[in-house]
Amino acid sequence: MMSQIEKQAAAARSASKRLAIASAEQKNESLQAIARALRNRKSRILEQNREDLAAGEKAGLSTALMDRLKLTEQRLEAMAAGLEVLTRLPDPVGEVLEVTDGEKNLRIEKIRVPLGVVGMIFEARPNVTVDASGLTLKSGNAVILRGSSSALCSNSVLVDVIREALADTSLPPEAVQLVTDPGRETVRELITCKGWIDVVIPRGGPGLIRRVVREATVPVLETGAGNCHIYVDRTADPGMAGNIVTNAKTDRPGVCNATETLLVHRDWAEKHLSKLCKELTLQQVEIRGCSRTRRVFPRAVPATATDWETEYLERVLAVKVVDSLGEAMDHIDRYGTGHSEAIITEDDAAARRFLQGVDAAAVYHNASTRFTDGSQFGMGAEIGISTQKLHARGPMGLRELTSHKYRIHGTGQIR
Amino acid sequence: MMSQIEKQAAAARSASKRLAIASAEQKNESLQAIARALRNRKSRILEQNREDLAAGEKAGLSTALMDRLKLTEQRLEAMAAGLEVLTRLPDPVGEVLEVTDGEKNLRIEKIRVPLGVVGMIFEARPNVTVDASGLTLKSGNAVILRGSSSALCSNSVLVDVIREALADTSLPPEAVQLVTDPGRETVRELITCKGWIDVVIPRGGPGLIRRVVREATVPVLETGAGNCHIYVDRTADPGMAGNIVTNAKTDRPGVCNATETLLVHRDWAEKHLSKLCKELTLQQVEIRGCSRTRRVFPRAVPATATDWETEYLERVLAVKVVDSLGEAMDHIDRYGTGHSEAIITEDDAAARRFLQGVDAAAVYHNASTRFTDGSQFGMGAEIGISTQKLHARGPMGLRELTSHKYRIHGTGQIR
Repeated sequence: MMSQIEKQAAAARSASKRLAIASAEQKNESLQAIARALRNRKSRILEQNREDLAAGEKAGLSTALMDRLKLTEQRLEAMAAGLEVLTRLPDPVGEVLEVTDGEKNLRIEKIRVPLGVVGMIFEARPNVTVDASGLTLKSGNAVILRGSSSALCSNSVLVDVIREALADTSLPPEAVQLVTDPGRETVRELITCKGWIDVVIPRGGPGLIRRVVREATVPVLETGAGNCHIYVDRTADPGMAGNIVTNAKTDRPGVCNATETLLVHRDWAEKHLSKLCKELTLQQVEIRGCSRTRRVFPRAVPATATDWETEYLERVLAVKVVDSLGEAMDHIDRYGTGHSEAIITEDDAAARRFLQGVDAAAVYHNASTRFTDGSQFGMGAEIGISTQKLHARGPMGLRELTSHKYRIHGTGQIR
Repeated sequence: MMSQIEKQAAAARSASKRLAIASAEQKNESLQAIARALRNRKSRILEQNREDLAAGEKAGLSTALMDRLKLTEQRLEAMAAGLEVLTRLPDPVGEVLEVTDGEKNLRIEKIRVPLGVVGMIFEARPNVTVDASGLTLKSGNAVILRGSSSALCSNSVLVDVIREALADTSLPPEAVQLVTDPGRETVRELITCKGWIDVVIPRGGPGLIRRVVREATVPVLETGAGNCHIYVDRTADPGMAGNIVTNAKTDRPGVCNATETLLVHRDWAEKHLSKLCKELTLQQVEIRGCSRTRRVFPRAVPATATDWETEYLERVLAVKVVDSLGEAMDHIDRYGTGHSEAIITEDDAAARRFLQGVDAAAVYHNASTRFTDGSQFGMGAEIGISTQKLHARGPMGLRELTSHKYRIHGTGQIR
């Protein structure tokens, strides 16, 4: 007997075959239809969302979680507008990536194709339901969504609205599947559903991601953890350094591309660190400093080893004074999560060494780590930010939701 | 306390940092040095190989396994020559894949970088030790090799020779590590050594690959299984079909791109299948046929459901008569392993439908499945053939052993 997840995966797989050969027009019409339906059904969606919010309040969810769970007219409109953005992006499917003349005049074309069936496991935010459905649909994939139980009413109504909209288009409603059983066991089933699901993308806290990596037999695209650093070099312009550090820490502290640790060359620290720490404190940032930081800024909380490895995701910044660029790079190598790392310097040789030697998805010279983001990178939208090296690294947009195949045209060739 | 594998992974990781910034010249000189050393030390290598062969004979290894284990002067020369081929291939590292103007005039470069540390788990053939060392070195990666215990003397001497050669070059000998503990536990340690090893590539039978997929937390590049089909369409040229099927089955039956099942349109079967089966039989191929096959070729062994899913890797061919192209595609969808699938037809619309609709790494029109191979595809060499969709699909050469990073050049930009 097939389990519920296997049944859904089989339905998604069958739908994915129709999506794989759908034209850009068909996909864009479906995205438009979903956007319209989200606007038309907003009172029904907000009503269901209020159920989740009421249950969340009873269960004592944190203010941050409640905020992520909450839908508003404005947020719904942003979700619908996001789908419309997708219609204006080029269709990645069918792109000819390479044409090679193989042995014996075989013509070998490398063609971009969808992945097939994508499994998304995510926490809290119901907007992921719509974003992931839109991105996978535009890239020709079917999707199986497994959100958290705290958002079940919201996710259910959103998927109902999406599928009702698809039913009036040329694409199959089965392309979007929601796992409604809130048990932990369904996660395990989903990530071991090999042969039916082609990739799993977990989006959430480190606990979720670790579990998925440990238990999955389906290939995983890891997302997320961002213990990002800025290194202020000896020759850094003080004004630029102040702007960038303040922006990278305070613009939106709760996201993965926010900076968590500041490394400062001792010469720069002596002249400018005290002023920078003061400015940050005025922006309600708590400074956790090494002993040399506290020498120039005594109000800093003493940093412990834990601070170097913590992704705070709040208005807290670890600060360490280093003797050299090399020491900064070693620190990043040891504590970084391979997300976004920046150097601020007027010394081009130092910048080159940092950009070449630091192993991360995005390495910056004289810019804020906050730019690591699909829309800032010109991808239009993203399904997550990969911090691993296989398949996709950094922001993942439509192209990162594709694979390729080789199409070989012969005239009877044999080996 | 660090385990032996962790120590080796740490040493490999440290070496990988030097390899990542090595020039093409440095890498090519090292490959030349290894090739020279293999030639100079051939008697020492063959002597150690004889130890493995003697132990294998005692242990009652099959003739096929003994053949794969055996090194000869000729095979050693082929391994050395393979390294020299690599020196003539372009260095993939540092290639600028894309330059984008991001928001606020940020210049975003997408740069090809090595993966870091590659774990190889493989069975029997000691040539993999040299091939994998050469490919990973040229692509700027360190490698940890875990061969089978039956080849331990051969692999040990080969790695000694490689490391001795590297010691006289500018690249670190620690770039190539061999796991010498033959216990099963070392495989588990290797594939869960997350944070130290960036990717694991298993090469071997389905048992090994399944185990690696199930237990690994390090990302896996699956290789290998090839249950490949040829579909002979209604309009196929009989001569071409005969040539291609015979070649795909008999040229080298033991490799993954050999064809295992022949699907034949009923109209073609009626006119030509009997003759084709006779020809194959003359080539010592055993035919396992469906009932309609046996009607035109009564000597065929009756095929069971198992035959459709078996990768024989010998001179056996399953044959099934189908009513339509659609039925053939459904059969491939159900039993294929996503490796190589071919259609033989004079009907371009049928070919287009097959090439678009069949989901496999390589899809062929009027050519033998035997061409799915790195050197046939113009890659120069391959580390395996991926049958999954993430990261790499089909033959994996130097570029498939790389990742990328985004290098962002700013002038003080903040969000």
